[in-house]
Amino acid sequence: MTRDELFENIKRKKSYLCVGLDSDIKKIPAHLLTTEDPIFEFNKAIIDATHKYTVAYKPNIAFYEAHGISGWKSLEKTINYINSNYSDVFTIADAKRGDIGNTSLMYARAFFDAMNFDSITVAPYMGEDSVTPFLQHPNKWAIVLALTSNKGAFDFQFTEDKESETLYQKVLKTTSKWGSADNMMYVVGATKADMLKDIRNIIPDHFLLVPGVGAQGGSLQEVTENGINSKCGLLINSSRAIIYNSDKEDFAEMANKAAHELQQEMEHLLKKHNII
Amino acid sequence: MTRDELFENIKRKKSYLCVGLDSDIKKIPAHLLTTEDPIFEFNKAIIDATHKYTVAYKPNIAFYEAHGISGWKSLEKTINYINSNYSDVFTIADAKRGDIGNTSLMYARAFFDAMNFDSITVAPYMGEDSVTPFLQHPNKWAIVLALTSNKGAFDFQFTEDKESETLYQKVLKTTSKWGSADNMMYVVGATKADMLKDIRNIIPDHFLLVPGVGAQGGSLQEVTENGINSKCGLLINSSRAIIYNSDKEDFAEMANKAAHELQQEMEHLLKKHNII
Repeated sequence: MTRDELFENIKRKKSYLCVGLDSDIKKIPAHLLTTEDPIFEFNKAIIDATHKYTVAYKPNIAFYEAHGISGWKSLEKTINYINSNYSDVFTIADAKRGDIGNTSLMYARAFFDAMNFDSITVAPYMGEDSVTPFLQHPNKWAIVLALTSNKGAFDFQFTEDKESETLYQKVLKTTSKWGSADNMMYVVGATKADMLKDIRNIIPDHFLLVPGVGAQGGSLQEVTENGINSKCGLLINSSRAIIYNSDKEDFAEMANKAAHELQQEMEHLLKKHNII
Repeated sequence: MTRDELFENIKRKKSYLCVGLDSDIKKIPAHLLTTEDPIFEFNKAIIDATHKYTVAYKPNIAFYEAHGISGWKSLEKTINYINSNYSDVFTIADAKRGDIGNTSLMYARAFFDAMNFDSITVAPYMGEDSVTPFLQHPNKWAIVLALTSNKGAFDFQFTEDKESETLYQKVLKTTSKWGSADNMMYVVGATKADMLKDIRNIIPDHFLLVPGVGAQGGSLQEVTENGINSKCGLLINSSRAIIYNSDKEDFAEMANKAAHELQQEMEHLLKKHNII
């Protein structure tokens, strides 16, 4: 998917919501456990119930890998289901990969060729040759970790060099030269919303994938005020607050409700900022 | 596997060789392509031919993921084959994972519980809660990226803070407090052998997993002189130079030869340093 197509979907759906498919067999409603592939049945119901309000889906790959081959099957069925039924959503393999060049190339094959995701999240620690293999597929995206939403973000990402530049700032400045706003995005945690203005000074145009709204405590409004740009430039992820809004038979209906509420808030903010 | 068990295996086999199973369907001998699972058949033959000289095997997970479910099957068969037949080798899932706590926990399940690897390589960028979930399994290991062997290592790993401490030094100092030399190792590229003395000042006891000998240009002797400690403390990885020593029917025999040559050199170095 191109940046323009993504922006068109955002305007049409009046939403910049990404739903995180952190689908955990221990948390999905009990009545699904008797089906052949409970994780896929759960995802399918969540996707059907939320796609109207959602511009992106983000399966968290760890939750599938944890089940070995059967988890990998659930993942493949999920991405195929999305690609077959809802071509207007952007898909993110939240895999946080990154390795030497020939190995990153293999990860690109796994997620872009074998599974046809639009994008993959990538860790920057190993530098240029670990990221650029993800930038060589037309209309595919690398989403680089910059400033994450977790407590551990403070261990290294805020380390200042001699010019008082933090590591996350250096990551933004350095990696953004390897591609463009048409094939790179950045992960910036919603719990660090006050840093978004500074981040926008470094990368005014790139889309930001923002986890941490909801369960992790980030504020949608604050993130939007500080991070929005003329093409929206934000994908706000919500996982647990949507997919586990109920653990009963009404889980899909309740996910729909939670997604709709976020979409309504987003519509208001998009209008406020003259995007729609 | 415990650190003492690993050290016993090193002394008994007179080797600290790790064979990297970067098994690529495009590079394995053509006659295997007619078998049901060419990647597994290749790995099995390589393992049978090299285990005598090898203390560790390191499947590079990207090479398996690139094939989706069938790749995941080859990986499971490979780790099961090693665990069933050669309990005296240490197994490394070279996966370079790392995510927020609940997600890293899922990766730990994938590689420690579902597949029973001894260890997994982990990227440090996201900090403490991305690493510690890998340290809670008895006799399992997190192998943290410190100084990698690739060109991109220079992009961020050498960034100096105000006290002239590089990022990789900070990673070593900070992360080593989260566990011990009994459940953590570090990736240090052989191409950076001159930094090994400095690294040994920071972490005298930890095992180092050293990629980059052979195809990437690192020197076994230089790495050993600068990095060895009283319990050896080194696992030197070789992938391409062993597993692709021949692309003909004699590939296993030639892998045996390449592994034996490295083992002989290692035996000499272990004796020189009074380890055996």
